[in-house]
Amino acid sequence: MTDALAFRVLRRCGHARRGVISTPHGSIDTPAFMPVGTRAAVKGLTPAQLAEAGTQIVLANTYHLMLRPGADVVRQLGGLHGFMSWSRPILTDSGGYQVFSLADLRRVDDEGVVFRSHIDGATVHLTPESSLAVQNQLGADLITAFDECPPLPTEQHVLRQAVRRTVAWARRSRAAHARSDQALYGIVQGGLDAALRTECLEQLLEIGFDGYALGGLSVGEPLAETHAFLAEFTPRLPDDRPRYVMGVGTPADLVAAVAAGADQFDCVLPTRNGRKGYAFTSQGVLRLRNARHRLSGDPLDPACGCYTCRNFSRGYLRHLFSSGEVLGATLVSLHNVCFYESLMRHIRAALDAGEFDTWRRTFADGSAAGRSEDEE
Amino acid sequence: MTDALAFRVLRRCGHARRGVISTPHGSIDTPAFMPVGTRAAVKGLTPAQLAEAGTQIVLANTYHLMLRPGADVVRQLGGLHGFMSWSRPILTDSGGYQVFSLADLRRVDDEGVVFRSHIDGATVHLTPESSLAVQNQLGADLITAFDECPPLPTEQHVLRQAVRRTVAWARRSRAAHARSDQALYGIVQGGLDAALRTECLEQLLEIGFDGYALGGLSVGEPLAETHAFLAEFTPRLPDDRPRYVMGVGTPADLVAAVAAGADQFDCVLPTRNGRKGYAFTSQGVLRLRNARHRLSGDPLDPACGCYTCRNFSRGYLRHLFSSGEVLGATLVSLHNVCFYESLMRHIRAALDAGEFDTWRRTFADGSAAGRSEDEE
Repeated sequence: MTDALAFRVLRRCGHARRGVISTPHGSIDTPAFMPVGTRAAVKGLTPAQLAEAGTQIVLANTYHLMLRPGADVVRQLGGLHGFMSWSRPILTDSGGYQVFSLADLRRVDDEGVVFRSHIDGATVHLTPESSLAVQNQLGADLITAFDECPPLPTEQHVLRQAVRRTVAWARRSRAAHARSDQALYGIVQGGLDAALRTECLEQLLEIGFDGYALGGLSVGEPLAETHAFLAEFTPRLPDDRPRYVMGVGTPADLVAAVAAGADQFDCVLPTRNGRKGYAFTSQGVLRLRNARHRLSGDPLDPACGCYTCRNFSRGYLRHLFSSGEVLGATLVSLHNVCFYESLMRHIRAALDAGEFDTWRRTFADGSAAGRSEDEE
Repeated sequence: MTDALAFRVLRRCGHARRGVISTPHGSIDTPAFMPVGTRAAVKGLTPAQLAEAGTQIVLANTYHLMLRPGADVVRQLGGLHGFMSWSRPILTDSGGYQVFSLADLRRVDDEGVVFRSHIDGATVHLTPESSLAVQNQLGADLITAFDECPPLPTEQHVLRQAVRRTVAWARRSRAAHARSDQALYGIVQGGLDAALRTECLEQLLEIGFDGYALGGLSVGEPLAETHAFLAEFTPRLPDDRPRYVMGVGTPADLVAAVAAGADQFDCVLPTRNGRKGYAFTSQGVLRLRNARHRLSGDPLDPACGCYTCRNFSRGYLRHLFSSGEVLGATLVSLHNVCFYESLMRHIRAALDAGEFDTWRRTFADGSAAGRSEDEE
């Protein structure tokens, strides 16, 4: 383990924890949501807008950045913090999830992965050593071991092989990691098989990591099974290290993961849905293209104090989407990130007050838990 | 004339004037540049970003807004100011320029124009009366008489007919105007024919307008002819009323128009070029897609203090354009609008100091006057 990360649990409520992660670029109040800045940009939002939304940490994707502009370019332009002008903490994933879900794979073996770049067709090798070398150059505060991430459902022997490789690759990632100012997270794989996950976790604990991530979720399995798995398995992760549930999720997913004892989350939903004109609100999800918003002078969410809600009506935002004005994507993405950050603040406040269980019941009873406006 | 506009000339330098236009939504320091918000949105920029850039007035297009979302929708959602959340002055054009340059025209006669909507193919009539009714509903502070705007070069009899119709339509626009809190500008047509322009102007003066606009420029004629015409004709516009040169232009065009005695300008260049990755700078125009910016840690313009230049390198901005990240369009558009607003501030400061001629020579000697980076 490194000195790059300190983690303190301030308060507990059942399995749920309220904590603080300290990094070289400042601290992160947990539970924390991390907006996704795949190519060193959270789509459509300036760092100033992200900071105004209350964002404390963003995620960037190793896979995309190693292909373009290249890790050496990012390093020469100040590392990720200087490159994207984000002075607070950053996390990079290992490239594992993307290479298995996006790339044109040519070969996967114990050594690593060979794939063809979607940009120029070049043949690219990705191994634990190269993933770590890239992440060392990108210079995020929190980085992750290279893992094999199979889609679900899959056969047991595929899961077993993924766990075996993930552990071997975690050991090589640990050995290859060359910067003491970056904390390294290990990624637990094993699908929805708690025994296999436990086996994976135990071996990762022997290697020793600064934090532990649950990978390989939200990759095709039914949502109820994800929630059941998280409730069962998350508490088995070490208590004194941050727990990161990768790629999760909707507001209801986040609340469920917090209740299970998770501390960090990332998801493209706020910005992806924002670009498509879907707004998360305390009354459910709004679809701005629906004609019923045409003359609405209401803000997206009367309970929200974000820049978008303070200044623009649903009718105006609908006009922007109807007209193809990109400002609509920016304004709704901004609102959605604010909504997620506000949700996390409410969760943290409930934990601080020792009232998380009560808060969670109110949340589950409310419509924010998932009601979504249909297409007309 | 209305009480909606007061104009004072504070200082002169040759034909150039430093002034202030007062409107119901605040005052505008002139000479003033007006960023274009065609569909009630300056492309990619929030009102907060525009205000931070120093923008005092924006333009919106009657033609686009009458087709979508419709003037009644804008009116019901607070008029343009409330709709787009811009509390400072707004100007709307008459739809004349757009209908002649963009629309699928079906008939043009003394009554007005019939065209097919590019959105749904509907047949739409646009007359002086309907243009004014739309502009009264949109509620801008400065509005414009409906005019006929032929492309250049064109035959003399076409120009003559355009002038005859523009004057008749100006009279009908004046009569149809129904709001005393909106100032009405007359538009002078007549191509590059100073005698015809004078004839048009004299008839508009008889009708009487709050301000006078030069339309029908930058519509296909050589740039040198535009400049020569502006130098000759602008000083003939009434001295005690704002003079608005429509659709102009590059930084060098603006300086030339100011020298000729113009007070207001609008142009899509800062945002259109910004979206394409072209940045105006004090050293000329940068093309961010050029490979030579790949490792550049320099800001777009070392002389600029805008948000983009304070925070991002050319290398990062190039990465955003190479990767198709829309944030690049936002950041370079923001810089370009800041560059234009800064240029206007320098012009106004030079006029205030009585040093415009000196400043203008320095500007013309500098590379900002137009050097542009080529495609590689």
